[in-house]
Amino acid sequence: MVETPARVGIVMGSDSDWPVMREAGDALDEFGIDWAADVVSAHRMPEAMVEYGRTAHTRGLEVIIAGAGGAAHLPGMLASLTPLPVIGVPVPLKYLDGMDSLLSIVQMPAGVPVATVSIGNARNAGLLAARILAAGDASLTQAMIDFQDRLREAAEAKGEKVRAQQG
Amino acid sequence: MVETPARVGIVMGSDSDWPVMREAGDALDEFGIDWAADVVSAHRMPEAMVEYGRTAHTRGLEVIIAGAGGAAHLPGMLASLTPLPVIGVPVPLKYLDGMDSLLSIVQMPAGVPVATVSIGNARNAGLLAARILAAGDASLTQAMIDFQDRLREAAEAKGEKVRAQQG
Amino acid sequence: MVETPARVGIVMGSDSDWPVMREAGDALDEFGIDWAADVVSAHRMPEAMVEYGRTAHTRGLEVIIAGAGGAAHLPGMLASLTPLPVIGVPVPLKYLDGMDSLLSIVQMPAGVPVATVSIGNARNAGLLAARILAAGDASLTQAMIDFQDRLREAAEAKGEKVRAQQG
Amino acid sequence: MVETPARVGIVMGSDSDWPVMREAGDALDEFGIDWAADVVSAHRMPEAMVEYGRTAHTRGLEVIIAGAGGAAHLPGMLASLTPLPVIGVPVPLKYLDGMDSLLSIVQMPAGVPVATVSIGNARNAGLLAARILAAGDASLTQAMIDFQDRLREAAEAKGEKVRAQQG
Amino acid sequence: MVETPARVGIVMGSDSDWPVMREAGDALDEFGIDWAADVVSAHRMPEAMVEYGRTAHTRGLEVIIAGAGGAAHLPGMLASLTPLPVIGVPVPLKYLDGMDSLLSIVQMPAGVPVATVSIGNARNAGLLAARILAAGDASLTQAMIDFQDRLREAAEAKGEKVRAQQG
Amino acid sequence: MVETPARVGIVMGSDSDWPVMREAGDALDEFGIDWAADVVSAHRMPEAMVEYGRTAHTRGLEVIIAGAGGAAHLPGMLASLTPLPVIGVPVPLKYLDGMDSLLSIVQMPAGVPVATVSIGNARNAGLLAARILAAGDASLTQAMIDFQDRLREAAEAKGEKVRAQQG
Amino acid sequence: MVETPARVGIVMGSDSDWPVMREAGDALDEFGIDWAADVVSAHRMPEAMVEYGRTAHTRGLEVIIAGAGGAAHLPGMLASLTPLPVIGVPVPLKYLDGMDSLLSIVQMPAGVPVATVSIGNARNAGLLAARILAAGDASLTQAMIDFQDRLREAAEAKGEKVRAQQG
Amino acid sequence: MVETPARVGIVMGSDSDWPVMREAGDALDEFGIDWAADVVSAHRMPEAMVEYGRTAHTRGLEVIIAGAGGAAHLPGMLASLTPLPVIGVPVPLKYLDGMDSLLSIVQMPAGVPVATVSIGNARNAGLLAARILAAGDASLTQAMIDFQDRLREAAEAKGEKVRAQQG
Repeated sequence: MVETPARVGIVMGSDSDWPVMREAGDALDEFGIDWAADVVSAHRMPEAMVEYGRTAHTRGLEVIIAGAGGAAHLPGMLASLTPLPVIGVPVPLKYLDGMDSLLSIVQMPAGVPVATVSIGNARNAGLLAARILAAGDASLTQAMIDFQDRLREAAEAKGEKVRAQQG
Repeated sequence: MVETPARVGIVMGSDSDWPVMREAGDALDEFGIDWAADVVSAHRMPEAMVEYGRTAHTRGLEVIIAGAGGAAHLPGMLASLTPLPVIGVPVPLKYLDGMDSLLSIVQMPAGVPVATVSIGNARNAGLLAARILAAGDASLTQAMIDFQDRLREAAEAKGEKVRAQQG
Repeated sequence: MVETPARVGIVMGSDSDWPVMREAGDALDEFGIDWAADVVSAHRMPEAMVEYGRTAHTRGLEVIIAGAGGAAHLPGMLASLTPLPVIGVPVPLKYLDGMDSLLSIVQMPAGVPVATVSIGNARNAGLLAARILAAGDASLTQAMIDFQDRLREAAEAKGEKVRAQQG
Repeated sequence: MVETPARVGIVMGSDSDWPVMREAGDALDEFGIDWAADVVSAHRMPEAMVEYGRTAHTRGLEVIIAGAGGAAHLPGMLASLTPLPVIGVPVPLKYLDGMDSLLSIVQMPAGVPVATVSIGNARNAGLLAARILAAGDASLTQAMIDFQDRLREAAEAKGEKVRAQQG
Repeated sequence: MVETPARVGIVMGSDSDWPVMREAGDALDEFGIDWAADVVSAHRMPEAMVEYGRTAHTRGLEVIIAGAGGAAHLPGMLASLTPLPVIGVPVPLKYLDGMDSLLSIVQMPAGVPVATVSIGNARNAGLLAARILAAGDASLTQAMIDFQDRLREAAEAKGEKVRAQQG
Repeated sequence: MVETPARVGIVMGSDSDWPVMREAGDALDEFGIDWAADVVSAHRMPEAMVEYGRTAHTRGLEVIIAGAGGAAHLPGMLASLTPLPVIGVPVPLKYLDGMDSLLSIVQMPAGVPVATVSIGNARNAGLLAARILAAGDASLTQAMIDFQDRLREAAEAKGEKVRAQQG
Repeated sequence: MVETPARVGIVMGSDSDWPVMREAGDALDEFGIDWAADVVSAHRMPEAMVEYGRTAHTRGLEVIIAGAGGAAHLPGMLASLTPLPVIGVPVPLKYLDGMDSLLSIVQMPAGVPVATVSIGNARNAGLLAARILAAGDASLTQAMIDFQDRLREAAEAKGEKVRAQQG
Repeated sequence: MVETPARVGIVMGSDSDWPVMREAGDALDEFGIDWAADVVSAHRMPEAMVEYGRTAHTRGLEVIIAGAGGAAHLPGMLASLTPLPVIGVPVPLKYLDGMDSLLSIVQMPAGVPVATVSIGNARNAGLLAARILAAGDASLTQAMIDFQDRLREAAEAKGEKVRAQQG
């Protein structure tokens, strides 16, 4: 496991999830938040997963983002091992459009929550982590407000295009 | 809107959701975290909802928990209005077992995340809020670890009962 | 927001929905009904959405058509803001074939109806708007009857082709 | 078929749907809009259904509300027979929670729209009919705005109760 | 409508369904059963549909096969109009993989059955019609038994290939 | 196996399905068609099932009605064993509302059709068998037309009641 | 953890699952196979779960049966920890009828299989464990054959009852 | 049917399933376990299926793997015919993403279990068969442990790649 000063850990069961999950890192980069990604497989390296979860808060991590597909156990297992907030990204596999991933991640029993975002939407996991870290951090809160302003401006610009096309 | 020193806002579309949603407050009470509940209906008082969302972070709130059912728009709308992390609780209605509520809450577009918990599980929303506030707060982190220890002890005690019953 | 004498407003969350949604405008054109399309994003420009909804009936609009996908909140939010009839078009996204969009739009609570049409079927939204405007307008009613006659004739012509192919 | 000066026709396949569908009439009563309910079964009296649909606009009707469950064909068939706007209410049957009713009603092909409301929600069908009739009727539009104000006030009153209960 | 000595009528809402539905005719050809295909659209030519259904048994038809997709009303409407057995083929459309078509066809109310086959499987509709006509026709029964023997032989031959490939 | 002059065989996997399945027999009784019911379990008496299927047409049966729930294999297996038309009734079990039963029965591969009726609707299975036997039997055809007339009259009588209640 | 000579371990997340899961033990009792039940919660006692899984085959266990509901992670996690066959029982919770439990258990990635049985069917898990232990054990194989004979006889007896009731 | 000393039988309804199902054989090869594949169609060669099932344990087979799609009856029928453990592989067909296959295989009634693996995952069926044969076979158990070690090492190596890419 990498020893880093990262505040957010991004984990997934295989490097094949990396193209999806790196969007979480990209989002965190926009807010200048350090993160570290790793492969932590619930089903192929369970002891390393336990170790990762149990030590996460002692290694400086403040939020964990976990992506998984199908019988997606990684986010929930990590949530049972750490006191940190865990964000789950349902990764869609070849069949069922991610519905199995979503239900496996979100339907956690009372006592062990996973903060689930939309199917395949690792970017939103990154943004949610930024909001979590912004709680109680005025400058990060301002950065999120600025980000939301830019979303609004981009949407307004798209309105220009639609209005122009129908002229 | 109540002016309180609460750190967590718990909102719902109607007082009929209160029996479900108060479990979020009960969970926060176990961690000594102040909260304030209110009715904020996306569909019946949209301007008040905008006001609630836009001012939440200026009124001292650090996390918002929003419960909604059916075409459940409150969590996502609040997430678009505030820089704070928003936790969505899919409230099951008379038909569809909460599947409509879940999809309406979790399937947010890139840019605007909602931290979704399991169907009808307001207790987990409270616990997730506690984890979010614990990030960077050593004593709250320790309280969460203690809570998880008690979960483990309760599960172990249940094992005693099962082993006794098969004797 | 465009100031036009349009009777029907067609709105969507992003210009990427325009290729789908313009079919609503094309249908209205067949009936000589003026319309104006715009980007109004529930999640990226909520205050502009409130403004759009609150003022729609004062700007001459008589019907609003709103397309949205995933956690599709735009049609329902507009319906809560305007006394006008709001038609919702469930736009299918990459996963779930529009089932999330459909449920997010159609499952509105008592008090705030959205007139939902089939998944991805903006043309039907335009035709429904035409029917709504035709209620109490004899010449538009006749135009709708003529349109239905042409549908029938086209279907009959297709019968000719099927009968010929099996000969 | 009743010869009445009703502006809205409310039809259903059996009198067993009446307890659900009468809520549409109750909603219209709140707006002083005349309506007439009848049993028109697509599957048991198809010719009468054709007659009802073909003559609706000549008998003074301006909107049709049709409730149906399971393989719910009545709303779509009426929409193919009349130039009027047709509102479909998916009535939930013993199994599948109304999902079959919803899909059978909403998934109409291009050319023949049905304005679908939420499962079992005949009240919203009545309110949608009121909005349709209000388009272009200033006093009915004002009545709808007043209705929405009362919805808001009722929601605000519920907030009082929730705030009181947590004190 | 074609005046033919056909025993089986094959109908569909549009000639775009013909490539799927002609497999029903191909299956009937294998049994030497005369059939006639036509476009009969529930939603675009409802009176012609009523006429088709009401007269079918007087024109020599003994079975009707109807294909439809989405809000698929044709099979059920024909079943309400004719005393003949009606076979429904759920045609899958662009979204939902034919689940809407299946439910719209199969979930008929008590009194009006539709014999539903698998999604997109017009060939099975043809074979079911052949079985229906074979009931009480010894030579057609024998032809069906021979057909089933050939199915078995083809499956056995495939076993040869699989056993060879693993050698 | 009972040796009877029955024309329709009604089979089910257990006597617990009898209360549902006897409605098929009741419907056949209305048309004076002889039937015989039996327990034939695909999973508990497979050889007897093979025997039942292989000999059905030689024992005078002309149609088989088979009810089954969950992983419902009886209708499809019988269809593979007999040249007769097989009607499948999806029996809903404790979970999933009969959706598993429906898919297990209806989704048969090309070559082996099952005529599937709605979930839990054994009455429609009986009526479909009557239609199948009526194909080519003028008096049974007339009986079905009379039955449909009575359905219409009953529906019209229900209309009286609805019109009276709103007076 | 109990030190027993049991050949089958039956585990569940809470003693509330015991009424469902004890049917697995009852089935094993019918075959004279020793078993031991315990509470092993993936989410509340993850290290104990790892210990249970890693040592299972060294403690004499030959098969593990694990029941779980919702985001059901126990069967899959145990399968990743032990070389033994793991049987998963999807326990239905309050919402979704066990569909979430089923998908969370069955949709395991390549490399780590879970032998999944039907929703809520712990009895079948016990019977599957008996079949697994019977593989290569002639007397247990014979016991399974005898069991299947009794199933057949019971089904045949039910046939008597159905035939008597229609007389 | 091939007379072989194989311990595992791999069967499917058609040679078109062979590309999917041979992955079961490949997995067994990694453990040096003999297997034999064949086409055994429940719907096209039911008597041969009965014969295959009834004689499987007398021909030296210890486990059966059966793949099937749609109304997938082969695994359950074989489980009713043999005392051996039967593993079912839900093969996804053109529509519904294998959900019909999964439910048709897994939802077996009490008394007749099928060990179901994930959709399209024949490799896991082979691995599950290896685990079943390893129960009580120390060297095969060790081979499974070694296999799991290699899974872990491969996952760890993927971690290296992900850590390198973010550097």
